Amino acid sequence: MICRGGRILHTHARLTAQFLEIFGRSLEILGALRPTKVNDLKYNVPADVPNDLIDIYIQNMDAATAGTGKMNLFACDQKIEHLNDDFYDGGNKIPITSNDPGHLFEIGQRCHDAGTIGVLAGQLGLISQYARDYPDLPYLVKLNSKSHMVKTSQRDPVSQAMWEMDDVMALTHNGINVVGIGYTIYIGSEYEHDMMTEAAQFIRQAHELGMIAVVWMYPRGQAVTDEKDPQLIAGAAGVAACIGADFAKVNYPRAFEGMTQPESLAIAAQAAGRTGIICSGGGSLPALEFLERLHAQMSVGGCMGAATGRNIHQRDTESAVRMTAACHAIICEGASVEQAMAIFEGN
Amino acid sequence: MICRGGRILHTHARLTAQFLEIFGRSLEILGALRPTKVNDLKYNVPADVPNDLIDIYIQNMDAATAGTGKMNLFACDQKIEHLNDDFYDGGNKIPITSNDPGHLFEIGQRCHDAGTIGVLAGQLGLISQYARDYPDLPYLVKLNSKSHMVKTSQRDPVSQAMWEMDDVMALTHNGINVVGIGYTIYIGSEYEHDMMTEAAQFIRQAHELGMIAVVWMYPRGQAVTDEKDPQLIAGAAGVAACIGADFAKVNYPRAFEGMTQPESLAIAAQAAGRTGIICSGGGSLPALEFLERLHAQMSVGGCMGAATGRNIHQRDTESAVRMTAACHAIICEGASVEQAMAIFEGN
Amino acid sequence: MICRGGRILHTHARLTAQFLEIFGRSLEILGALRPTKVNDLKYNVPADVPNDLIDIYIQNMDAATAGTGKMNLFACDQKIEHLNDDFYDGGNKIPITSNDPGHLFEIGQRCHDAGTIGVLAGQLGLISQYARDYPDLPYLVKLNSKSHMVKTSQRDPVSQAMWEMDDVMALTHNGINVVGIGYTIYIGSEYEHDMMTEAAQFIRQAHELGMIAVVWMYPRGQAVTDEKDPQLIAGAAGVAACIGADFAKVNYPRAFEGMTQPESLAIAAQAAGRTGIICSGGGSLPALEFLERLHAQMSVGGCMGAATGRNIHQRDTESAVRMTAACHAIICEGASVEQAMAIFEGN
Amino acid sequence: MICRGGRILHTHARLTAQFLEIFGRSLEILGALRPTKVNDLKYNVPADVPNDLIDIYIQNMDAATAGTGKMNLFACDQKIEHLNDDFYDGGNKIPITSNDPGHLFEIGQRCHDAGTIGVLAGQLGLISQYARDYPDLPYLVKLNSKSHMVKTSQRDPVSQAMWEMDDVMALTHNGINVVGIGYTIYIGSEYEHDMMTEAAQFIRQAHELGMIAVVWMYPRGQAVTDEKDPQLIAGAAGVAACIGADFAKVNYPRAFEGMTQPESLAIAAQAAGRTGIICSGGGSLPALEFLERLHAQMSVGGCMGAATGRNIHQRDTESAVRMTAACHAIICEGASVEQAMAIFEGN
Amino acid sequence: MICRGGRILHTHARLTAQFLEIFGRSLEILGALRPTKVNDLKYNVPADVPNDLIDIYIQNMDAATAGTGKMNLFACDQKIEHLNDDFYDGGNKIPITSNDPGHLFEIGQRCHDAGTIGVLAGQLGLISQYARDYPDLPYLVKLNSKSHMVKTSQRDPVSQAMWEMDDVMALTHNGINVVGIGYTIYIGSEYEHDMMTEAAQFIRQAHELGMIAVVWMYPRGQAVTDEKDPQLIAGAAGVAACIGADFAKVNYPRAFEGMTQPESLAIAAQAAGRTGIICSGGGSLPALEFLERLHAQMSVGGCMGAATGRNIHQRDTESAVRMTAACHAIICEGASVEQAMAIFEGN
Repeated sequence: MICRGGRILHTHARLTAQFLEIFGRSLEILGALRPTKVNDLKYNVPADVPNDLIDIYIQNMDAATAGTGKMNLFACDQKIEHLNDDFYDGGNKIPITSNDPGHLFEIGQRCHDAGTIGVLAGQLGLISQYARDYPDLPYLVKLNSKSHMVKTSQRDPVSQAMWEMDDVMALTHNGINVVGIGYTIYIGSEYEHDMMTEAAQFIRQAHELGMIAVVWMYPRGQAVTDEKDPQLIAGAAGVAACIGADFAKVNYPRAFEGMTQPESLAIAAQAAGRTGIICSGGGSLPALEFLERLHAQMSVGGCMGAATGRNIHQRDTESAVRMTAACHAIICEGASVEQAMAIFEGN
Repeated sequence: MICRGGRILHTHARLTAQFLEIFGRSLEILGALRPTKVNDLKYNVPADVPNDLIDIYIQNMDAATAGTGKMNLFACDQKIEHLNDDFYDGGNKIPITSNDPGHLFEIGQRCHDAGTIGVLAGQLGLISQYARDYPDLPYLVKLNSKSHMVKTSQRDPVSQAMWEMDDVMALTHNGINVVGIGYTIYIGSEYEHDMMTEAAQFIRQAHELGMIAVVWMYPRGQAVTDEKDPQLIAGAAGVAACIGADFAKVNYPRAFEGMTQPESLAIAAQAAGRTGIICSGGGSLPALEFLERLHAQMSVGGCMGAATGRNIHQRDTESAVRMTAACHAIICEGASVEQAMAIFEGN
Repeated sequence: MICRGGRILHTHARLTAQFLEIFGRSLEILGALRPTKVNDLKYNVPADVPNDLIDIYIQNMDAATAGTGKMNLFACDQKIEHLNDDFYDGGNKIPITSNDPGHLFEIGQRCHDAGTIGVLAGQLGLISQYARDYPDLPYLVKLNSKSHMVKTSQRDPVSQAMWEMDDVMALTHNGINVVGIGYTIYIGSEYEHDMMTEAAQFIRQAHELGMIAVVWMYPRGQAVTDEKDPQLIAGAAGVAACIGADFAKVNYPRAFEGMTQPESLAIAAQAAGRTGIICSGGGSLPALEFLERLHAQMSVGGCMGAATGRNIHQRDTESAVRMTAACHAIICEGASVEQAMAIFEGN
Repeated sequence: MICRGGRILHTHARLTAQFLEIFGRSLEILGALRPTKVNDLKYNVPADVPNDLIDIYIQNMDAATAGTGKMNLFACDQKIEHLNDDFYDGGNKIPITSNDPGHLFEIGQRCHDAGTIGVLAGQLGLISQYARDYPDLPYLVKLNSKSHMVKTSQRDPVSQAMWEMDDVMALTHNGINVVGIGYTIYIGSEYEHDMMTEAAQFIRQAHELGMIAVVWMYPRGQAVTDEKDPQLIAGAAGVAACIGADFAKVNYPRAFEGMTQPESLAIAAQAAGRTGIICSGGGSLPALEFLERLHAQMSVGGCMGAATGRNIHQRDTESAVRMTAACHAIICEGASVEQAMAIFEGN
Repeated sequence: MICRGGRILHTHARLTAQFLEIFGRSLEILGALRPTKVNDLKYNVPADVPNDLIDIYIQNMDAATAGTGKMNLFACDQKIEHLNDDFYDGGNKIPITSNDPGHLFEIGQRCHDAGTIGVLAGQLGLISQYARDYPDLPYLVKLNSKSHMVKTSQRDPVSQAMWEMDDVMALTHNGINVVGIGYTIYIGSEYEHDMMTEAAQFIRQAHELGMIAVVWMYPRGQAVTDEKDPQLIAGAAGVAACIGADFAKVNYPRAFEGMTQPESLAIAAQAAGRTGIICSGGGSLPALEFLERLHAQMSVGGCMGAATGRNIHQRDTESAVRMTAACHAIICEGASVEQAMAIFEGN
């Protein structure tokens, strides 16, 4: 039920109208408004961004995409999603230093200094604990998250917002550089409707405040037999477009019959229309394999960026910083795999 | 539970009454109000449209129905309802260009230029991503939608609002030509009550703001054995009337015993009273068959319009524009099937 | 959870108190207030009707009961409750004209002109679609309704409010003659608590605004073995009293052992205290049988009115108008069955 | 989810702070506040009663306890809890006059005139229907209630508030003498959390407004194997203390091994700390047996009052008035059983 | 659904912007804000504490940790969590005096006078009943609690807030020394999302008001096979960091293979980043064993405090006061086990 806030406003509007007779006049004023067309702007600015805040939206998009419209997202939200499994394995494959969340901000800050990071995406609470020391990093505040403990066999996935937009604004008011928000939807879940409502609301509110909005679109639930079905992922991308997201993070789909995997991804990218598709990085891969895949997703798959977590933070700081730079080169500068590998190898 | 907003108002009213003693006086003022009778108006204007906004309501109805009271609705909300299935089949029956949602707006704009479209109905987010480039198209903002993944055998259908009226107004404030709202109810579902409450609220609020309201009325759920039973569809039409909708989209009912299918539809149209019935177009049909059916629905079935999606957007732009014009001719101008076919064939 | 609105107010009150130090003074003022005793009033006016609005409440009660305190309620809410089943049967027993909801308003207006109707009770949306043409009819706005599709064997009944009091006030502000509200509770349902909370709130708010409140009290659910058990219906009547309703519509109970059916109804009427019991009319009966039953309910059963739907609207307009007049004669004027039959037969 | 009201306030506070820079100053003011210590007061006044309203709280406690701190509660909330079963049995054991709820108010008024009643506890709606004629009776407004139809074997018990504090204040504003509120919690129910949240909120709000708060603490649900286990009832009493209630009504516990029943009750009374325990009267007993039990509960069990319903209202008015006086003598005046029996017998 | 409060604000903001054109200017002002870096502060102050309230936050942290950043938390919330089981066993192992909740405040006040207590953590209602007599004790208000009656085998655990921040502020406004709030999350429960949302909101609001926030992080539910798995507890600690808590209370984990138990705890402490880990004391232990364990948790486990309940209040007042002092010595002053034992033994 989401009608409440609205009602109060409308009723006030009515009272205003009846007693002060100014409503008609303000409607006339509104009738005179004309939106700024996208053609005249650097980026596609959604029509629900107030005309007065178009510049703010473009500034935020510039910050998040190094002025290219393509986003190198550093995914730092896994401490809830995967609990400690991505951060500590007794020093086996993951460096011990990855266990301390401060590691994420150190990497982020060094990449920001080097101009190679889009946004650091993390939960509001985590950002709050560190952001006084790293206020200039562009942050994407992840508003919902859930642990992986309750499996789909027990109950369909549900992830619920933990903060609202004025919590995000509280950081902004304290001088933290928040440029947008993120939200995960499990489409096909029995709780799909709750997540779609929250996501749609947050996208709207982010736009209202001149911020960008990213949705994580994951088909999951008892009704989902193949989470990587390319037609299904194209459908999920289309849903992201319908709720007005600026970017949608999806898993890399399996290939359609008769197509390569990045070509199949391109179908999803097209189905998303003006919503940019960014692929998730998944588990740690050898650097070359990882960068080759990323290159194909960008050049063939029509992606507008990528979201990388474990392939960055499951490294020591130096290595992580260089990997972020390599991603940046492919995503934002159109570098080749060879050029990116050279960056990663520090040559 | 929907009492909240109201309470605050009433309590304020009371405090006002007790401390300022003006409540009694304003009741006197209210007692002097007289509604404008429908006989004196171009359309039936519901009594919950404020008297001051009757002109706005009539303007919106004019825009949505080409001044005829009959609506040629272009259904563009399927990217959530059917995911990508209506938009991409590998180029088999659906043109590849249908995969890009921009296709919908191109068609819409060309038909608007030609005066042959009623409204483009789509989710608020989708409209937001494109409307800066197409601000004058009359939009019907679809406020709820769900994917088709969770089947009735798993759980009864539930579709929940993703936006509220002030989100709709945000588009209006930016100069986008929104004329009304849409909402889907699955009657007979175990969640019927939640959808009926949301729908009723949105209809009320739309009227309060001088907008028109359309409900999609679909019997569906474990308790529904025949979704196209004509008595059931007439009942659904009656529910739409009871919640105050201006138009109700229904599926084409099966025939009552001893009647034709369009005659049976006419029973539903009568049961809906002043709420106009519009039939959904369903899957793609050969043009002649489609237009014949539409003609019967309008001339025999007593419909006040039609909602067409796949029969338009599963065509290339030229063909889609001509089909929209053909629908317009039948719906709004009383054209014959032959006249409409001639329009479709570009003669 | 219904504490929210209240909290805000109280907190404001507190802040006011602490910073402006006027709370104590206003409490003194409040301490000086004395309620108007019922003895001095035409009707029992509940203590939660503001003293300033007692006259409004009495005006509304006068309008709803032809100045007698006894209510001839015309039940027009069945298009949701029974879908189309009460309105169309192919012309078998129900006149074809009953299929058009306009029929209800025609009957209502003619009876209002003749002074023989208490209230026309219907959903807010239905009233909205017609009330500009019939603004003076006293309306009772039914705030909740559900279809009969989901049976108790599938899930216990739940009916949820579709509108709130400021929606009702919106009609009033446009000059429509709304005198009260109605709400259905399925007592014994697993959702009893939700309906009781909504009903109690709406009764309170109606009183706060000087309106009357009617509850439909139906025992129903898996826990209810006999919906017409007279002790159970007396209990339901008592619940209506405890939530402050002015009238409670109940089904005609079976007889207690050793009593007649109307005598058993009298036990419920007594258990309801100052809340007036009105019996529902049920399915269509032969006129004499119907009026005899009504007469017994009023004269022996201690009822304060009756709610009649099918026995009125499943007739052509002339017959329906005469039946309403006959009911009025028994309910409000103490007519005998013979006198009422003469009215019905147009003598 | 109960954070909403608070957020708005805090956000406002923040805006105030940032733009007007007065927040810091008001915090200084707040820092200078010192609570009034309990030692200096007639009763223990909870710390969440505003310092400005301590006198109001003490007045309400005086009214509710005849100035003794011990409460003779007349329980009139059974018409929902037990439907009509406590009020009508065909005249077998219950007088026919008990069927009319007016009986309760007659008894109440006569006892109030005689100074022998603490509070009349009933639902807000019932009080509303009668209180214009009995405005001075001290009322305890029962905010939740449920029927006994859905048994624990079908679903765990849930009872939900039907009114909020500003509904209670509406009575006060009309001059009705409301001194406090009541709420029932079924501890151990699967819905325990909802009831505990509502109860805690209402206690807080009652205190905020200078009113007293009573909770009915009943262990019940599938998880409860023995509702009268003395350790469990002591635990329930402790919960009442933790949510800040002024009084907690409990059922008379079974005896601990090696203790008498009233001694076992004393353990619960001690566990409740400053929250006064009042025992429920239960079904009708012979007068002597009833008064002996009450005496033991007060003198040995450490109770701060009693809640009596059926033992009063299942009598004719004269007898009921005398029984109330007898209870008052034991509870508030320390009378012996013999003295109380003499009062009951009218000697 | 938590978007509501925010919407109203944003809509207001927008209206302000459009009609008064000051929004742009205030954004400029906001852009000029710079947060105070943590390096310059006594403690890590989260970035969502308003810059203006940093001093208040530091004062509260000083009060709660005796100026050391390490917290000796006296856990007094068990009367709901464990009902009466921790407070009365017939005098067997628990002193009879422990049954009266006044015992907790007596201990607290004496320790506060001696400077050996961090905070007394208890439910708001319990604090309200006693705090007028003990206003200066630093309180941590526990906002949620549940009884232990419904077991995980019956339903996954859910604990819901009973108060909100303005209830906490009500105590502050009356001069009670509240320094922070507490909230329990059962991670892995099917209701995890509801508890995480509430906790995240309260942490944010506490910070907004300059208070500290502590979460109790307990893995529990059908999906949790080993509540003391060290990797799981490290994950829970990480979740606390992601929602922005200042301290997280966890159970003492089992040992990782090849590590001691306190070393395993240190992994959790590291995973929590800037959120301080405090271990729960559990059931009563012999004093030496208890203090040895506490010493290891602090010196090896990297803890920032401890939460002790039964090991304090299941003693007579003298002994309890000395045990609190012994804990304080280890936690805040780095005392050895021998030194702490000497304190406990009163030498």
